[in-house]
Amino acid sequence: MAVAEKIRGNIVNNTKTFKLHSGLAIDSIEILDFPLCKLLLCNDCNYPWFILVPQIADIEEIYQLDWQQQQQFLNESSLLSEFLKQEFSADKMNVAALGNVVPQLHIHHVVRYKNDPCWPKPIWGQHPEKPYQENELQVLINRIKPKLLAIIAEQN
Amino acid sequence: MAVAEKIRGNIVNNTKTFKLHSGLAIDSIEILDFPLCKLLLCNDCNYPWFILVPQIADIEEIYQLDWQQQQQFLNESSLLSEFLKQEFSADKMNVAALGNVVPQLHIHHVVRYKNDPCWPKPIWGQHPEKPYQENELQVLINRIKPKLLAIIAEQN
Repeated sequence: MAVAEKIRGNIVNNTKTFKLHSGLAIDSIEILDFPLCKLLLCNDCNYPWFILVPQIADIEEIYQLDWQQQQQFLNESSLLSEFLKQEFSADKMNVAALGNVVPQLHIHHVVRYKNDPCWPKPIWGQHPEKPYQENELQVLINRIKPKLLAIIAEQN
Repeated sequence: MAVAEKIRGNIVNNTKTFKLHSGLAIDSIEILDFPLCKLLLCNDCNYPWFILVPQIADIEEIYQLDWQQQQQFLNESSLLSEFLKQEFSADKMNVAALGNVVPQLHIHHVVRYKNDPCWPKPIWGQHPEKPYQENELQVLINRIKPKLLAIIAEQN
């Protein structure tokens, strides 16, 4: 059985159902589901800022995922980081599991540029969020979603 | 061959020798070596703040490690996070690969408390660093080093 199917099986069989935390849902747009993680885009056009949320209930730290889930998370995080670095010609990726405000495990993947509004500081709490225009959002989603779906299909 | 030995083999066989970046060395104390990562303690007593540095030359992003190294990194990161969360009764762990100032891949593992000087903000760039007193530093190292060495020995 492929890892992706096993992971999906674990999610389906999980006795407690995963539900995206309202604190994550409110400021973001759902892009697609990896086998383990939901991929969100933060509604802040200062930087291409994505979040992976493992779809497992009641998890706050990466080490609380079981080992198979941790490996799948790493796989999805690395795939996403490499894709974003290349697609957006990033100077640096910032990858972070913080969760001081919203405890549900979520891992930021932020494309950074040497000329972005916060460089070289981390982005959190530094600069007011700037929502996308509706058409900008659609252009961005249409640009990345088919490529990511193709990469996911290739892996499984 | 155990994973730890394989990883050590990769490091030894690496044609370019790993050297800790001076930007990391200057503000931290080397605690011990995991099979893959060097463990540093930041000299800032505002929070127990540790850094893992994979001992592979010329790596800036987690996805640039080969898959075996990535898995070993995850293993060491999860082991360290769980140990720190319990040992220091953390309210939350903050785990982050930033690297905007020092490009050599290094991953922060910060013990956070709801009453620490920056909560709930991330710690970077928020609060001046506060070096440990020499005796505090020794007490801290003597407290954690034997326990971590025992955990590493148990794993290998």
